[in-house]
Amino acid sequence: MSLDEMFYPESVAVIGASNKEGKVGNSIMRSLKRKYDGEVFPVNISEDKVLGLKAYSSILEIDEKIDLAVVSVPAEVVPDVVDECGDAGVKNVIVVSAGFSEAGRRDLEREVEDLVEKYGMNLLGPNCLGIYNPSIELDTIFNPPEKQDRPNAGSISFLSQSGAFGAAVLDWFSEEGIGLSKFVSYGNRADIDESDLIEYLSEDDETEQILFYIEGLKHGRKFFSAAERSDKPILAVKSGRTKEGSSAANSHTASLAGKDKVYEGVFSQSSILRLRDLREMINIAKSLSFQPLPEGDRVGIVTNGGGAGVMATDALVERGLRLASFSSETQAKFRKAVKRGIIPEHATLNNPVDIIGDAPAKRYRRAMKITLEEKDVDVLLIILLAQSPSLEEDIVDVLDDMQDEGKPIIAVAPGGRHTKELRKKIEKRDIPVYQTPEEGIDAIWGLCRCCEIQDKKDV
Amino acid sequence: MSLDEMFYPESVAVIGASNKEGKVGNSIMRSLKRKYDGEVFPVNISEDKVLGLKAYSSILEIDEKIDLAVVSVPAEVVPDVVDECGDAGVKNVIVVSAGFSEAGRRDLEREVEDLVEKYGMNLLGPNCLGIYNPSIELDTIFNPPEKQDRPNAGSISFLSQSGAFGAAVLDWFSEEGIGLSKFVSYGNRADIDESDLIEYLSEDDETEQILFYIEGLKHGRKFFSAAERSDKPILAVKSGRTKEGSSAANSHTASLAGKDKVYEGVFSQSSILRLRDLREMINIAKSLSFQPLPEGDRVGIVTNGGGAGVMATDALVERGLRLASFSSETQAKFRKAVKRGIIPEHATLNNPVDIIGDAPAKRYRRAMKITLEEKDVDVLLIILLAQSPSLEEDIVDVLDDMQDEGKPIIAVAPGGRHTKELRKKIEKRDIPVYQTPEEGIDAIWGLCRCCEIQDKKDV
Repeated sequence: MSLDEMFYPESVAVIGASNKEGKVGNSIMRSLKRKYDGEVFPVNISEDKVLGLKAYSSILEIDEKIDLAVVSVPAEVVPDVVDECGDAGVKNVIVVSAGFSEAGRRDLEREVEDLVEKYGMNLLGPNCLGIYNPSIELDTIFNPPEKQDRPNAGSISFLSQSGAFGAAVLDWFSEEGIGLSKFVSYGNRADIDESDLIEYLSEDDETEQILFYIEGLKHGRKFFSAAERSDKPILAVKSGRTKEGSSAANSHTASLAGKDKVYEGVFSQSSILRLRDLREMINIAKSLSFQPLPEGDRVGIVTNGGGAGVMATDALVERGLRLASFSSETQAKFRKAVKRGIIPEHATLNNPVDIIGDAPAKRYRRAMKITLEEKDVDVLLIILLAQSPSLEEDIVDVLDDMQDEGKPIIAVAPGGRHTKELRKKIEKRDIPVYQTPEEGIDAIWGLCRCCEIQDKKDV
Repeated sequence: MSLDEMFYPESVAVIGASNKEGKVGNSIMRSLKRKYDGEVFPVNISEDKVLGLKAYSSILEIDEKIDLAVVSVPAEVVPDVVDECGDAGVKNVIVVSAGFSEAGRRDLEREVEDLVEKYGMNLLGPNCLGIYNPSIELDTIFNPPEKQDRPNAGSISFLSQSGAFGAAVLDWFSEEGIGLSKFVSYGNRADIDESDLIEYLSEDDETEQILFYIEGLKHGRKFFSAAERSDKPILAVKSGRTKEGSSAANSHTASLAGKDKVYEGVFSQSSILRLRDLREMINIAKSLSFQPLPEGDRVGIVTNGGGAGVMATDALVERGLRLASFSSETQAKFRKAVKRGIIPEHATLNNPVDIIGDAPAKRYRRAMKITLEEKDVDVLLIILLAQSPSLEEDIVDVLDDMQDEGKPIIAVAPGGRHTKELRKKIEKRDIPVYQTPEEGIDAIWGLCRCCEIQDKKDV
């Protein structure tokens, strides 16, 4: 069954909607009322109105067709409520309530599972935050916007088993300006699991990449084949790499985290890109969101600090990327720039190109242009030590202009207050800026691996 | 010879001081005039005054005793100027000017070396930024404060071969509130090298840890024995780990970066803690600056998100730290807290302690207190997913109060805008807050390794 109405509902009922501040059912109502354009129907047994909208004492009382019901009532009541949803012909249900298998109540969850089967409905959760779909502003997340921002619409879908962690990532996405297609917090997976989501998002025109935070899979084989069939790059952070971590994961999720080696195998077989950690996930997501994929993994580097260029070179070699070689034509262009006084004699004209500490924006322009024109360069890393008095703000325009060359550009600028301002200005032009050479290279690695996966899938 | 007058001069001459904005000699004068309390003597061949101070046409014309001369004149003129300094009896010279061995002019550098020997002076550089000593506000860095902040006084000394990279680190230090004892950009090391600096700073009461950014050593054996003799922890980032990186380093510094394996050996033999990269350096420096060293490497974790606890557990095991075990007494305390309703039944009461997504500050207080009282816990990692509507700002006080237990506390709070504000508030209380579980663990690893090194040196 399609999940279209779950992600793009025209009407949503909130069962357990509340006027009381601090209640989850109140926060969900607020999230939905904020921007979502569809109709919202609060269901509350004792109130006439919730947040100004007419309230219903049961979903069965609503005459209109309800595409999606969001349930936030005590766990013990959830089976009855789901039963009523089935009765009312509601085909899509999100159960936000916790207190199921994760809290030792496997029995309650089984009741819900049976009802899902009986009515042939789609159910997300229990024990989850639900969905955020920025393109229609569908927002079932109960965290208030003062505490958690929502990212703008974009191309990355992010799926998280853990709601708390998912919310932190969304919040961070917003801060970094990473564009989101769909966010799904899927919790205990009584019905909809990772595989169903991969299948749906693989057909979703708004999604270009699928990002996962996984603690343990429910159906490994099903996941594997869904990932295999998908024509979109899938990137995953999975916790529980060590024995101790995995045992901690087992005690906190209902599912077994399982042996990490098994996951490693499944991931590589189904060409899922496994990411090291949260920082790497954010870094790669930012580049995917801002820049095109490169055509290969040969990196050109232009820097005003030799040491930072060396660090980037170390990092790229260790990540299995290649330092681009310069043709004699490129070398001649550099020599000409030296002759014309644009690049000083003591600059390093080989990759990594070191245009020295006193480089102004104009010198960057020339060096970047020559490097981008080199056909051995697939992607360009620009390092800016912006503490230098010589580097003017014109560098923002220079970086922007260089995007016309059509190759991805990733920037690195370590530092404090002033550098932070500069980073913001550059990122407004859609060039991601990282704080360390290593993280810039991590991002490039992510782009290159996604391009590789895409190529494999396109064959 | 002692470097006391170099780091704590009562009078400084700036040779090449200038009224022209944009000139290095102008920026250095501005940096010195900003806060430094000692006397400043500009030397300029054609001006009567520089920035309002009487200018001298040569250092030989100044009657007062000059403790330190800072030289910023074209490289070709440097030998003459150094010669005059020697004549004038100046014993400490910083040569900021570039254009020596790093630019193929080994001959010029040799001239300077000979003069240093002739006069028995201390010379820092050439091709460097010089010194920043916040305790007397000695500041020879030519980067303007609008582009590069200066950190406050503190316990960490940071030494950088590369001036550009060093400036970026200082700027970042300021942003993070990391306290600095001395900054030294030592450039080409015509005279003073890493070993001399280790020796001096080992005797310096204001320095507790010595941080290095190294591209290549000049005298490996001398460095090794100075590090051996030092009773302070030395931490180093060295670039040029790979063949490609090392070859890039060779082309940009005058010194050979050398085989990385050799460094690895020297570092471990002289108990220098080698750091992976810039991010790790900043992360560890922050914890060293904010928190006491732990007495061992057994980590307690308290989190409101199970997944983040698992990530931290993975990371600590992979870094060779230990997950603390809870005694039956501690377990009993936790059960009592559950009975009294402070901690919910479905919380995970073992390490990592998961007090669940709806934890308020009060629950953190109880869980932290119990965990800190456990004698198997040497250091506490607190994870805050601050997107949760339940977590109030009281958490700032809770964290602060827990410092009374005397064990180091490190916090992790991933997220966006709101979380950033919260991080700032917590850091005002001297508890460092990191953006990912892995980085919190990196910081703890740094503290534990420094404690280990300290113990070894104290024997």
